[in-house]
Amino acid sequence: MKTNPGRFFEDYRLGEMIVHAVPRTVSGGERALYHALYPARGALYSSDEFARGMGLAGAPVDDLVAFHVVFGKTVPDISLNAVANLGYAEGRWRQPVYPGDTLRSQSTVIGLKENSNGKSGVVWVRTEGLNQRGEVVLDYVRWVMVRKNRLDVPAPDPVVPPLAKAVAPEALAIPEGLDFSGYDFALAGEPHRWGDYALGEQIDHVDGVTIEEAEHMLATRLWQNTAKVHFDATFRDNGKRLIYGGHIISLARALSFNGLANAQMIVALNGGAHANPCFAGDTVKAWSEVLDRAETNAPGVGAIRLRTVAVKQGAAPFALRGEDGKYVPEVLLDLDYWALMPV
Amino acid sequence: MKTNPGRFFEDYRLGEMIVHAVPRTVSGGERALYHALYPARGALYSSDEFARGMGLAGAPVDDLVAFHVVFGKTVPDISLNAVANLGYAEGRWRQPVYPGDTLRSQSTVIGLKENSNGKSGVVWVRTEGLNQRGEVVLDYVRWVMVRKNRLDVPAPDPVVPPLAKAVAPEALAIPEGLDFSGYDFALAGEPHRWGDYALGEQIDHVDGVTIEEAEHMLATRLWQNTAKVHFDATFRDNGKRLIYGGHIISLARALSFNGLANAQMIVALNGGAHANPCFAGDTVKAWSEVLDRAETNAPGVGAIRLRTVAVKQGAAPFALRGEDGKYVPEVLLDLDYWALMPV
Amino acid sequence: MKTNPGRFFEDYRLGEMIVHAVPRTVSGGERALYHALYPARGALYSSDEFARGMGLAGAPVDDLVAFHVVFGKTVPDISLNAVANLGYAEGRWRQPVYPGDTLRSQSTVIGLKENSNGKSGVVWVRTEGLNQRGEVVLDYVRWVMVRKNRLDVPAPDPVVPPLAKAVAPEALAIPEGLDFSGYDFALAGEPHRWGDYALGEQIDHVDGVTIEEAEHMLATRLWQNTAKVHFDATFRDNGKRLIYGGHIISLARALSFNGLANAQMIVALNGGAHANPCFAGDTVKAWSEVLDRAETNAPGVGAIRLRTVAVKQGAAPFALRGEDGKYVPEVLLDLDYWALMPV
Repeated sequence: MKTNPGRFFEDYRLGEMIVHAVPRTVSGGERALYHALYPARGALYSSDEFARGMGLAGAPVDDLVAFHVVFGKTVPDISLNAVANLGYAEGRWRQPVYPGDTLRSQSTVIGLKENSNGKSGVVWVRTEGLNQRGEVVLDYVRWVMVRKNRLDVPAPDPVVPPLAKAVAPEALAIPEGLDFSGYDFALAGEPHRWGDYALGEQIDHVDGVTIEEAEHMLATRLWQNTAKVHFDATFRDNGKRLIYGGHIISLARALSFNGLANAQMIVALNGGAHANPCFAGDTVKAWSEVLDRAETNAPGVGAIRLRTVAVKQGAAPFALRGEDGKYVPEVLLDLDYWALMPV
Repeated sequence: MKTNPGRFFEDYRLGEMIVHAVPRTVSGGERALYHALYPARGALYSSDEFARGMGLAGAPVDDLVAFHVVFGKTVPDISLNAVANLGYAEGRWRQPVYPGDTLRSQSTVIGLKENSNGKSGVVWVRTEGLNQRGEVVLDYVRWVMVRKNRLDVPAPDPVVPPLAKAVAPEALAIPEGLDFSGYDFALAGEPHRWGDYALGEQIDHVDGVTIEEAEHMLATRLWQNTAKVHFDATFRDNGKRLIYGGHIISLARALSFNGLANAQMIVALNGGAHANPCFAGDTVKAWSEVLDRAETNAPGVGAIRLRTVAVKQGAAPFALRGEDGKYVPEVLLDLDYWALMPV
Repeated sequence: MKTNPGRFFEDYRLGEMIVHAVPRTVSGGERALYHALYPARGALYSSDEFARGMGLAGAPVDDLVAFHVVFGKTVPDISLNAVANLGYAEGRWRQPVYPGDTLRSQSTVIGLKENSNGKSGVVWVRTEGLNQRGEVVLDYVRWVMVRKNRLDVPAPDPVVPPLAKAVAPEALAIPEGLDFSGYDFALAGEPHRWGDYALGEQIDHVDGVTIEEAEHMLATRLWQNTAKVHFDATFRDNGKRLIYGGHIISLARALSFNGLANAQMIVALNGGAHANPCFAGDTVKAWSEVLDRAETNAPGVGAIRLRTVAVKQGAAPFALRGEDGKYVPEVLLDLDYWALMPV
């Protein structure tokens, strides 16, 4: 058999390191496509001049381009036979990715727990994205529920890794040289500083985008994500293609510009839930809540912890969970992350 | 309130200069996307070699990429609450934009006139696009009708700026070094020279393109144009997304290659009307008329003033206005501009 | 008449060389778009680092980008009035195309044969793609059936050029410096070497992609292919846009990664048939068969001759021809080519 059937639960070994295939060089092409696919307007990622003024070498590709490229490579090895993408934790962007950089990914199995039904299990991996110099540009923990194929293989000893609820502010990696002291708020698009955001403050980002099939497939292919459910209308019983959760992450983040234009760089992913599936024709909107704030050592740079929630048409204002504690059906994504803002 | 509600008529002051947000660096990515979105075939914008042979440093990005990028930045400040985009005048491309250039925009309010109903008014702005060296690459006048929010604010003294019917030939900015004396008509695609076009000559550009939702949204996002009507199917009563007028400008210009392959560079925008709205599913065709011709000082370079009209399915040949002087319903765009051709 | 009506059968002369218009510089933008349009994962075309490790200057653009760009330029001169694209032969990729290269095309008429009905005829051309240094990067023979316009023009003496069934292994052009001896199978995505593929072996590539209108039009425009049938829904009686055959070629090739990840470079096109038309909404899958293998002089590099077949939904496993010898209706493409693999 020459083709890749993907791994099943019994194929993972605790501590094993998996090298993911197909390294990828990014260029101005990926940057332009990102701007065509999402209403992204962050000045630091749009303008080489603006980024240089903030102490960087030029405009990096969006932090979520780095995330999607690194994530996409893991799909054939981690989630081809996954039945659910359960969560993210301890994600840290370690350094910006620039056009010309080449990314590859590797994952270490850090947890395994077979389900009591014996038909599936949860796999925890810590994934690292590395650049051409072997430097880690991003790492994060993801856990997925994976089907078992050979049901007679004994369950492994259960290991559930301890995971932080959120990345500690002192653990955030600030890009070398980053300096927001000369930040141009007019060019960035909004006057609101780090100090203007109060804990618990909620922001409705107002704008909405109706999703087309062609768009989410272009995006998902761009990250070389190979999951069949996103591309093949004959694969699911209802003839619908499921939209890659990362597409919703990028849409929500881009929509959040309107109210969070100065939350420039994502530096940590504390957690994330793809609360409900999304399909072409849905109109996505977003709202955010300020969860925490922290100072940093970089000049003029503050850290803000945000929850950004993507919802679809019909959602009530600031919709999240129902009385039963479950996400309401209109919620697509609940994302918890740290970003850097000018103080 | 952290989000941008846009300006209303009473928020504009005569003489005020507005700095628009989010500078943008363009690259080969934007160039490739432009070729994917429109059937653009101008040799000067497609081939670095061809452009170098004509005295330029390389192939610039399409003149309309420059226009769309500069225009897109003005939307959040000028037309978010506009009820109509009324016209363009005195547009001049001052120098080519190359991959690697960073563009930003600023607009000066040059006219204000409240409507007699007291509920809206017309705002005239002169918008400049600047590159990373602070040089103006493009400027143009645009006027829009904007809603009034606080109806009790007194009307400003009406100021209607005098605007030229067309940019005078002697005011056209010819890119430094441009030299068409060694022009390769075979590689450019057509044998017709500047002298071959007669005043009043009409050309049916033959080809048509049926528009898809994904395409116009990719394009409009690429220019960071944030107008909700283009993206959100829930925003308008009929559930249709309105196609950005600039998408039609680019389609019409690209279609005009078939018959005007040698009208290489757009150097002035004399006027333009978005005659009727366009929606996904419409099939766009174009025709042009020669309005004027002028010599230039650049070797081998002539200027031609063209009207290019975009129409949709069902349009009569060379459809424009009805007996009542109004645009017929199939006309989408009436564009009046100067282009440079080999003599 | 300023517009191009295209050539008719009586307009071709044996031995004539036609210079095709609109040279094109490719960049990282075309590379990124190719990855967005097709599920392409070949490591050599995805990563500059991987390509350098194999002795190249960096990652070339996909071999099929070169093919589509060169092919697209020929459409206005060769196939605008074609009623059928009959075949390809003797195609050879002579050297990789890198971002920054500028391609142009020229074709020589090598065969002419009027049909017995006197209303059309077959034209054979040998097309060359050249880079900015005038080097041939690709050449191939294509033949098309073209309508006759002036039916009274006498038929030319019939000349049917002799064409090889397949490019001989010793005629394959191996890129200078190519060296697969340090090939990284883990990063490339599969462990299978040249020696692991048996003559006659068939591989079902498993994955499928449902095609959207926006995607095939973006792709076809990107190659500046001007054939109306691909873009204008009003052009055909059934209101459907025909998908450019090259889109199917690229889809099939990209899908073949799953099972042929190490068939890295296409170096020859032995033949190809667009067996049935494809329309938006179709779900494309692919299978391949090993037709031949050959050694090369380059270190660690073997050549493999493959048939890759694209099929649509409803196709039987390894569907190809019916008992009548004709392609079954679900077969879209039958492509015969040589690729290079690590031994």
